[in-house]
Amino acid sequence: MKAATIRDGQILVEEHPDPVPGTGELLVRVRAAGLNGADMMQKRGYYPAPPGAPQDIPGLELAGEVVARGPAATRFAEGDRVMSIVGGGGQAELAVVHERLLMPVPDTLDWPAAGGFPEVFTTAHDALFTQAQLGSGERLLVHGGAGGVGTAGIQLGRAVGARVTATVRNPASRDAVAELGATVVAPESFAEQGPFDVILELVGAPNLGPDLDALAMMGRIAVIGIGAGAKGELNLGKLVGKRGRIHGSMLRARPLEEKALTARLVERHVLPLVASGAVRVPIAKTFPLADAAAAYEYFAAGGKVGKVVLLP
Amino acid sequence: MKAATIRDGQILVEEHPDPVPGTGELLVRVRAAGLNGADMMQKRGYYPAPPGAPQDIPGLELAGEVVARGPAATRFAEGDRVMSIVGGGGQAELAVVHERLLMPVPDTLDWPAAGGFPEVFTTAHDALFTQAQLGSGERLLVHGGAGGVGTAGIQLGRAVGARVTATVRNPASRDAVAELGATVVAPESFAEQGPFDVILELVGAPNLGPDLDALAMMGRIAVIGIGAGAKGELNLGKLVGKRGRIHGSMLRARPLEEKALTARLVERHVLPLVASGAVRVPIAKTFPLADAAAAYEYFAAGGKVGKVVLLP
Repeated sequence: MKAATIRDGQILVEEHPDPVPGTGELLVRVRAAGLNGADMMQKRGYYPAPPGAPQDIPGLELAGEVVARGPAATRFAEGDRVMSIVGGGGQAELAVVHERLLMPVPDTLDWPAAGGFPEVFTTAHDALFTQAQLGSGERLLVHGGAGGVGTAGIQLGRAVGARVTATVRNPASRDAVAELGATVVAPESFAEQGPFDVILELVGAPNLGPDLDALAMMGRIAVIGIGAGAKGELNLGKLVGKRGRIHGSMLRARPLEEKALTARLVERHVLPLVASGAVRVPIAKTFPLADAAAAYEYFAAGGKVGKVVLLP
Repeated sequence: MKAATIRDGQILVEEHPDPVPGTGELLVRVRAAGLNGADMMQKRGYYPAPPGAPQDIPGLELAGEVVARGPAATRFAEGDRVMSIVGGGGQAELAVVHERLLMPVPDTLDWPAAGGFPEVFTTAHDALFTQAQLGSGERLLVHGGAGGVGTAGIQLGRAVGARVTATVRNPASRDAVAELGATVVAPESFAEQGPFDVILELVGAPNLGPDLDALAMMGRIAVIGIGAGAKGELNLGKLVGKRGRIHGSMLRARPLEEKALTARLVERHVLPLVASGAVRVPIAKTFPLADAAAAYEYFAAGGKVGKVVLLP
């Protein structure tokens, strides 16, 4: 099979042996595989794949058709449309995935949308609800509202009755993000919209001080991205005075059972919203697998709205 | 009535009008009232009493006998032994307390122990369980293990089957703290005992970096004291990588309904441990109310094990 391949900091497309499904696993013919910020870090050598995942094939999510089943795999049949997060190896023609990680693809999602759904919606759902316990009527701030996790977070917040503000850096992207249901502001002026009960932090340490200032009493900050910096000053006095909470989180390093649990939560709480049309997957651009290098360049340039997806 | 009184940074004992219980409130003849770190801050002018509490009479906890009931107060009868946290005004001969804040005093607690129980056991229970969700088998680190909250936290951790390590600065106090069930270490060497699932942070920002280094995967840091400093560097990369959580919390500023809920939780989960003898209230020293200034000096000097309690 052909697969995107990281070699010496470059993205190539190379031939690899076809993977073979083991016990409880399915072989999936990948139709679409989204790019994520973690792929950019892995390309630069900063974010190795976890043990058990392909080390040189990037890709944290995929959608496709089941083409073969390993021993004891019974949840899906050959031909079923499935999607999932994976520890790596998603950006390839074929991938092996444990059946407990897979979700069915609703009819409302075409292949590009299905390939761009799992990582960002699982990340946003886990951060907003499993961790930060966002509820109706609360005020949610989404940093980086135009990106994949941002567009997912805005829509999930709206779907549960939260009031959503999003920061968007590129002025040309603001209307598209506002259409998802957020009050859109420039990154330097979010404080005026607060205080916020929940803040989805996708930028990093430079936001830590302003986030804490804009946090409501008993507010929660869910940190899932630190691209702009890891280290910043924390004022514990303010955190104590506001009785606030800061969560750090990542999906990739989680063991099978935890990833499978997130898949069940997304099936139960998000797929019905996708099926009803309440939530959609904004796609910035698709690329054939052969143009993987161009897709990575496009992703890294920023300024887009929604997902960048490879189509093997 | 006589009461400890803060004036110009000094502790005096002065005459005040007797308080009168309103609807749902009880008048309590105070038999014992513990000192807490917050009293030291209030004396220095840093920590004003919340609205509705006596502004110049310190004291965040008390134990005593019901001597009169306001309209619609039905939970206790005259003569009942009661104890509670209060927003202020505990260090006096008489105090008015809403009946929903009061707890019955188990027979196993004499007056000094009852007067030193509410604040530190409520604080420790709230931080360890309501916030950090400490469970059996987990490793708990208690910073400042010889103090009131520290001795409460160690015993509550042990009672639920956690493995407890405590830092104690004064070598002379270590044996007494170890008898409560903790592995006792000097403050500079706790990292060797980790990693820890839950850290009860009573010292402040200087511990933030070492705490995060010693935190286990999915660990929780509950910050309830910042006497050694409020501002410190937080490495969000480590917090994300460990999927950790930092809580800030305080009891004093909470509204009636939240304080009443903590009282119900302590009644249900801690008073049975007190009644059975599994948990006790270490008393460092008691003082008559007339010697309140000396009690504050003794508290501020540190190096003690357990509570300092005034006996009006």
